[in-house]
Parts: sequence; C-alpha cells; structure tokens
Amino acid sequence: MKRVLVFDTTLRDGSQGSGISFTVEDKIKIAKALDSFGVSYIEGGWPGANPKDDLFFSQMQNVSFKNAKLTAFSSTRRKGSKASEDENLCAIIKSGVKAACIFGKSWDLHVKYALKTTNEENLKMIFESINYLKSKKLEVVFDAEHYFDGYKNNKKYALETVQSAVDAGADIICLCETNGGMLPYDIQGIVKETINVFPKIKFGVHAHNDSECAVANSIIAVEEGCVLVQGTINGFGERCGNANLCSIIPALELKRGYNCVLKKNINKLAELSRYVDEIANLIPDDSNPYVGENAFAHKAGIHVSAIERNPETYEHINPTLVGNERRILVSDLSGKSNIISKANEMAIGIKDATSEKVKKVINIVKEKENNGYQYENADASFFLIAKKALGFFKPFFSLRGYRVAVEKDTGGNIVSEATVKLDIKGKEEHTVAEGDGPINALDNCLRKALIKYYPDIEDVFLTDFKVRVVNSNANTAAKVRVLVESSDTSKSWGTIGVSENIIDASWQALSDSVEYKLLKK
Amino acid sequence: MKRVLVFDTTLRDGSQGSGISFTVEDKIKIAKALDSFGVSYIEGGWPGANPKDDLFFSQMQNVSFKNAKLTAFSSTRRKGSKASEDENLCAIIKSGVKAACIFGKSWDLHVKYALKTTNEENLKMIFESINYLKSKKLEVVFDAEHYFDGYKNNKKYALETVQSAVDAGADIICLCETNGGMLPYDIQGIVKETINVFPKIKFGVHAHNDSECAVANSIIAVEEGCVLVQGTINGFGERCGNANLCSIIPALELKRGYNCVLKKNINKLAELSRYVDEIANLIPDDSNPYVGENAFAHKAGIHVSAIERNPETYEHINPTLVGNERRILVSDLSGKSNIISKANEMAIGIKDATSEKVKKVINIVKEKENNGYQYENADASFFLIAKKALGFFKPFFSLRGYRVAVEKDTGGNIVSEATVKLDIKGKEEHTVAEGDGPINALDNCLRKALIKYYPDIEDVFLTDFKVRVVNSNANTAAKVRVLVESSDTSKSWGTIGVSENIIDASWQALSDSVEYKLLKK
Repeated sequence: MKRVLVFDTTLRDGSQGSGISFTVEDKIKIAKALDSFGVSYIEGGWPGANPKDDLFFSQMQNVSFKNAKLTAFSSTRRKGSKASEDENLCAIIKSGVKAACIFGKSWDLHVKYALKTTNEENLKMIFESINYLKSKKLEVVFDAEHYFDGYKNNKKYALETVQSAVDAGADIICLCETNGGMLPYDIQGIVKETINVFPKIKFGVHAHNDSECAVANSIIAVEEGCVLVQGTINGFGERCGNANLCSIIPALELKRGYNCVLKKNINKLAELSRYVDEIANLIPDDSNPYVGENAFAHKAGIHVSAIERNPETYEHINPTLVGNERRILVSDLSGKSNIISKANEMAIGIKDATSEKVKKVINIVKEKENNGYQYENADASFFLIAKKALGFFKPFFSLRGYRVAVEKDTGGNIVSEATVKLDIKGKEEHTVAEGDGPINALDNCLRKALIKYYPDIEDVFLTDFKVRVVNSNANTAAKVRVLVESSDTSKSWGTIGVSENIIDASWQALSDSVEYKLLKK
Repeated sequence: MKRVLVFDTTLRDGSQGSGISFTVEDKIKIAKALDSFGVSYIEGGWPGANPKDDLFFSQMQNVSFKNAKLTAFSSTRRKGSKASEDENLCAIIKSGVKAACIFGKSWDLHVKYALKTTNEENLKMIFESINYLKSKKLEVVFDAEHYFDGYKNNKKYALETVQSAVDAGADIICLCETNGGMLPYDIQGIVKETINVFPKIKFGVHAHNDSECAVANSIIAVEEGCVLVQGTINGFGERCGNANLCSIIPALELKRGYNCVLKKNINKLAELSRYVDEIANLIPDDSNPYVGENAFAHKAGIHVSAIERNPETYEHINPTLVGNERRILVSDLSGKSNIISKANEMAIGIKDATSEKVKKVINIVKEKENNGYQYENADASFFLIAKKALGFFKPFFSLRGYRVAVEKDTGGNIVSEATVKLDIKGKEEHTVAEGDGPINALDNCLRKALIKYYPDIEDVFLTDFKVRVVNSNANTAAKVRVLVESSDTSKSWGTIGVSENIIDASWQALSDSVEYKLLKK
C-alpha cells in the first residue's frame, strides 16, 4: 500500500482563517488530537513571528508525540544577509523542533514585487536557508510558494528554484498553489512535468480553495506522484480556506488505496473534525463532506425507500467508516417512506398502524409544511404530531389562555410578565411569572404551572432558540417560525411553532417541548 | 468560443438542501433572477409531486423568460404501464413547459433494488417515456441517474440506457454523479469513453459534492466534451450539496474561455449568490469561492503590501469580474478610514468634523458592535448614530414608555395590543393600536402617534423584518437582533435593534426607521 504523508497546517495556515483565534492552550489541545489521529507532520506556527507562537513552541518542548513530527514554519533568509544570522532561521533552531518548513518564492513576479530582489539572489536565499537548517540536522520541507503560477509564467525559473532546494538537501519539496485559482488539469500537467524533471525527489502539494478545487487538486497531485499533502482540518484558512484534510484523507484511504493515517483511526475523522470546530468555537458546517451532520442525511422520498433496501444506492461510502451516521429528514419533499422510517427511528410504532393512519400523518405533515412548519430540526414536534394522528396521545394539560405584557417605563426599564391559565389533571392552574423578555416570561410561567404536577420537567433546559420570518418579503405581520432546542440530563430535542404572532409561535414550541419530555418519560 | 449550457436546478434539487424551504413566491423570484442572469435552463420542480410545485408551474404560465427555458423534472414512467397514461408524464404535459428533464436508472443495482424490475423493462421505461414527451414536441434532457456508479459496475448496461435515450430522441443526455463520491479521474475516464461511444450526441454532467469534488468533476466533464452543466446557486442541495454554479461558471468563463451565461452578466454573480441566500434565509458563507465576503479578503502584513504593488500576487482573478471586491482586514486604524468612507458615502459630512468627533463615532460603533449590532444591512441606523455623535441631530419625538400585550383566550383567539406614550413637539401623545402580533401592533401604534405631526411617514412601509439570536448557544434570555427594511416611494433603508427583549429590539429598529425618514426629508 502506497504511503502518503499528511502534513497538517491547521495551527499555522488554518489559523489565518476569518474568525479563528486559537489560544496557546487551544493549539496544544489540537496538536495532541492530531497526533493521536495519526498525521505525520503538525505545523505549529511561525517561531519569532508573534509571542503566542513562541510560547506554543516553548510549551511543546515538554510534550512528546506518538506519531507526528512537530514542525516550525518560516521564510527563507532575508535578501543580502547570512542564513546563520537570520532572525527567522535562528528562531526555528531555538524552537527545538526537529522538522522545519521553509517557504521561498518560485514565481519571478513575486521576486520582483514582493521581495524586490534579483532572481539570482532568491535562488541563493533558498539554497542557503535550507543548507543552514540541514547543517543543524533538521528535516526540511521546502514550500515552493506560488509554484504553479510561477511555472505558468516562467517555467525555467520555477524549476530552478526547485533545483536550489534539491541542491541544498531539502527532504521534501512541496509545490504550493498559493492563490488557489488553479483548475484540475493545470495541476495534473505541472505536477507530472515537474516530477519528470526530478524523478528521484519527494514532492508534496499545498492547495487553496479559491476555485473550490483544493481537494480535487490535492488528490490529483497525489495520483501524479506527490507523497505529501498539506491541508487543514475542516479546510480552515484565509479567504476560501486551505485544502480540507477531512475530505482528502478518506478519499485517498477509502477510495484510492493509499495509507495516510494510522489505519484504525480513519473512523475517528468525524470526531476530530467536530473537536477542532469546537475548540475554534465555530458552528460545524452540516454540509461538510464525510464528517458533516448532513453528509449522509436523506430527504427525498425515493432516496429513502431505496436506501432501506440497499444503502449503497445513495451513499458513496458507509458513514461509519469515518465515524459518521445516516440521518433521515422529514420535509415536504418526503413521501410515505420517509415518514414511516422517521417514525420507526423514533419508536412511534407506526408499523402496526393501518395505511389509512399513515396517510393521515403524511397529510397533516404536508399541510403543516405548507403553512411554514419544517420538521428537520424539530423531531419532537413531529413525534407529537404522529402520536396525535395515530391516536396514541393523551394530553398532559390543556391551555385555556395566556397573556403576555411587556412594558417600558419613562426611566427606560423594561418588565416582561406572562400569565397562563391551564387545565391540568382536572384542575385549573392560573400562574404568573416574569422573565428576560416576553418569551422567557412565558416559558417560566408554563413551567411554574406544570412543575407541581410533573416534577420531571425540572431538569429540562432550553439550549437554543431561533426565530425566522417564513415569508421574508412580508412586513411585520409576516409569519414567524420559532425553533426551540431543549435538553435534559440525557438527551436533547427540537420543537417548532409557526404563527403570525411571535408569542404564539413560541408558545407552540415551548409547550411541545414539555409535552415531549412528559410523553417520553 | 465554445458554448456551455447552464442548467440550474436550485429550485428542484437545490431545494432538497437541509434548511431550505422555498415558498411559491420565493421560487418565482429566484426563477426571474436566474433568467435575467442568463442561464439556459431553469428546472422549477416536479409537477404532480406536491401542491407547491403544481402552483409554481401554474403561476409560471403567466411569466415569460428572456433567456432561459423553464424545465419540469420527473421520472420515467412506472414499470408495467403506458407512458401516455403515466401520472408523472401527464403532469409534465399539463404544466405547460416546453422542456422536460426525465431521470432514469443507469445502474443495474438500482433497477434491482429501487425499481424492482428487469433490466429490459427499465430500458423500455426510458425509451417510451422520452419518446412520448418528444411526440408532444417537448425538448427532453435525460438524466442518467447514477451513471458513473452504473458504468463502473456494469458498463455494458449503463451504455445501453444511454442508447435507449438516444433512440427515443432525447436532446441531451446528462450523466449524473448522483451519490457524489467520484473523484476527478473517475469522471475523466468515464466521460471520455462514453463520448467516444456516442460521438454525435450532446452530453451534460450533474455532480454532487460528497467528495468535495463536484466543481472539479463538472469542469473536467466539460473539458472532456460535455456541453451542459447542471448545478445550483451556492451549491444548495441534499447532503453535501450539488455542484456549485457560482464556482463553475467563473472557472469556465474566465479561465477556460467557454461561454456560459450572457457575457455581460458574469459580473452580477456575487449579487445573484447573495440574493438567493437571502430568499432562502440562509446566512451567506463568507468563505465561498469567487462570491463570498472573504473570497478576496487579505489580512495585514506581507500579503497586503504585496497586493498593493501588484494585485495578481495574491488574487487568482480580479474580484470585480464576478461583482465582488477586495477587502483588507486590518486593525484599529483602518476602522477609522472605513467609517469615514462610509460616512462620506452617506453624505454625513464627516469631512468637516474634528478628529475628536470622528473618534467618538468610531467608539460608539465599536461598542455597539461588541453588543451585537451590525451595520452592514442597517445603513439608516448607522446614519443616525453618526448624526447624533456629531451633534447634527435634533430628535423628532421622545419615548416616555410603551406597553405591549398579547392575549390568547379560551377560544384560541389572539389579540395583540400596544400603547405608546411619546413627547412630540412639546405635547404628550398617548395612543393605542392593535396588530397581527405584538411588533405589528407596536408599529401601528407608533405611526398613529406620529402621523398628525409628521404626515410624511404615511408613505413608509416595512418591507422586511428579520430576527436572529445573537448568542445562539444561550436560552430564551439570549440577545436578539432585529433588522427592519423600510421603503417609501423612492428608496429603501435598513435599521437595527438589539436587546434581550425582542419587543425592545423591534422598537429600536422601528423608531430608527421613522427617524431616518424624517431626517432625510
């Protein structure tokens, strides 16, 4: 099995992504997770560039990796100076790493506009920088920046920059598609030609996603002979991001027979992806290939019925291979089979129901969806509808009425108060509560009324609350859709309400939430 | 210049994306925008599948396109029946479209598990369905579902399904990568071989993004000879999405010399992308290639200084070609120049202001933004802040207090009532009004109080109202951000409010809206 080295740069190039700001502790946590997962290189930062990166490398001297090599990033030496006296290169030595990644210019346009030096001096900068680090016994990856643009613009010079790195003893030459604009056939041709020129040298690839081709370009470079892939977890990175290792690794491992990470670990990919998102404090992108919440979610009725007969029909891989799972979504595009399958997943026992009853559930769901309801993120409301339609539901309480008042006084103080009148177990309960806003007041009031009859609701918390206007071209009288996420000590569930009145939409979602809790008990 | 036909399926396959639920009005708006942009086909839905799609096609009979062909989607006839009696095919005829897209099975595994019929019957289903629609003078695109998986599994049979479609007179055969798992070289080989077998037939490609290769795979298929590309705006679609037309179109037009859409319109791509996100009520993904907010964003340092000397150094295309723009993300100082430039854009006259006053505006804006305000879509609120900070504002009214009450009675009727106490021109006005929900009531009440003093506000209408929870991991006491869009006969403007209390956030946005109107007068 051919080996491909995974070079993770989440902590360096990935940290340039908009909205990402890792603390030193964050970086250490991610580095440890990457090592356990089994990548080959972990690029931790740029020593000397900022205090955070210096602190990271200093703290990492006490951490030993099981699999990966900690790697420090830097540029070639400054023009017109000595490598041994260059601040950046000395900072690498000082950082204590055993491997370095040095970037240098392969595009003559950059030599002219960014470095403002001669092509010859740039070649010397590459040679001397790598040569110096090799003399200090470091493993050196050379990042040939803008290699593909450089090759298109001045092929001879781009190849000369590689030759300088080779002459200096670089262990691996990484061809960088820095601007991210290349299309697959550009990569294919240039990698092939370059490897033909240097048949004995180990090459890598570093791609950006500005053409939405970073994953494809990386895979193609490997197919053409590159033995190292640089990228980031979840594709973090500046502009449109770096090549996404969460898509590259499973493609190479599961579809092309390469070995990239510790073999037994590929099924921890989804967990790693979510862990890194969590540390970065980013909401995971549900549509992420392989690892996203929706990567194996099925909505269309025809898909669902086929998949139950044979999963291969609509799944490119078995989701468990990467630690993910199949999800069935309920929506207005879904047919009978979606609803039955969802009902069975939720143990509603629809199998025993006559087909007339199933039709009734489908019709109610369709009508609700026409009115703006959406059950993809409101499993619990779907559960209640199905139970009610099938005649499996006995109400725990019924609403006689509520009142909500918000008052702002001359001093600018705001008070929100709700009153609720419920029938519970044959008794009328009339309660009042305040809250931070009208919906919080209503929620507090509902709980206050119920808790003495149903003490179990005490451990229910609202964890999320979302409001969306359904017909967005309308005015304030437009319908609003409220989604509430609740959880208790063991699980979480979603409920929904739709109304022209935001208070009533919220009421529906809040009361569904407690009804679901009580029903599941 | 080689022509590539763009076949948009945002309204059909795209609407299967999680969280997407278009109303009929949404679909009509998007169809019109796609037609103006200049795509060749707009797939509107599946007639007969649900009431929403039927209503859409019926309303579209009164809409005429300048560029595109409205297309209806459906499956081949049911097994063992007549095409002329098939519900789905009859629904297409009834829908009044001139072009249809019919999908049929090209993978024998699906014939067995999904259709549960014989390979022969499936070929007849393809032939007879297309043949019937051709006899009704429709243009027919045949979607060869799972073509690539089918080809790998049973090449002979996959080619036979294409032959059936060709024999029946299909105008274009679209090779569908339905499961989205193929990698670039799979696509390259299979498209090439298929076109070799049918050198005179027009082929298209339909890709999904489960391997994060949908854009690359689509581009490769075109390079190998496909003349039609199916995809969706912003890559909307089930699981990981469909092939993203916002990345495919500029790659083909700007980098590969194909003609895809009305030539002058490629610079409206970013606008189209944002418009579709807005109608879908999805937060645009800032890292989207070409069209995203960050697609051409550069952080301070080496990139920025190089880019100021020569933009080509770190930009794969000129952002204005797709209607996007360069953004320089830098620290505090650029905040000042941004705000000055914004103020000048709005004719606030900040040029004359002393630098102390400018600082004051900057500090207020920064503090507001820390508290969840965002002025990108709330120009009018920014205008008021700047005017107030600069001392250019004399209030038209001041709030003494308001009350909002929502009451639901035993009969289920809901009444929303608001009272507002204002000081206007030295007089106290105390008014009451009802509305469809508490915010509409508050809006009605505010207008009722003001109109006799300021009759100009009569022509102000709210055109949009959006609510978003700012800290989304919190409970119902989380802060909410309300954005209101208003317009009069000549222009429209946006205002914002943020509060833990949705009523007060709405009040801020509503009162900013009328203040702006009065100030601009």
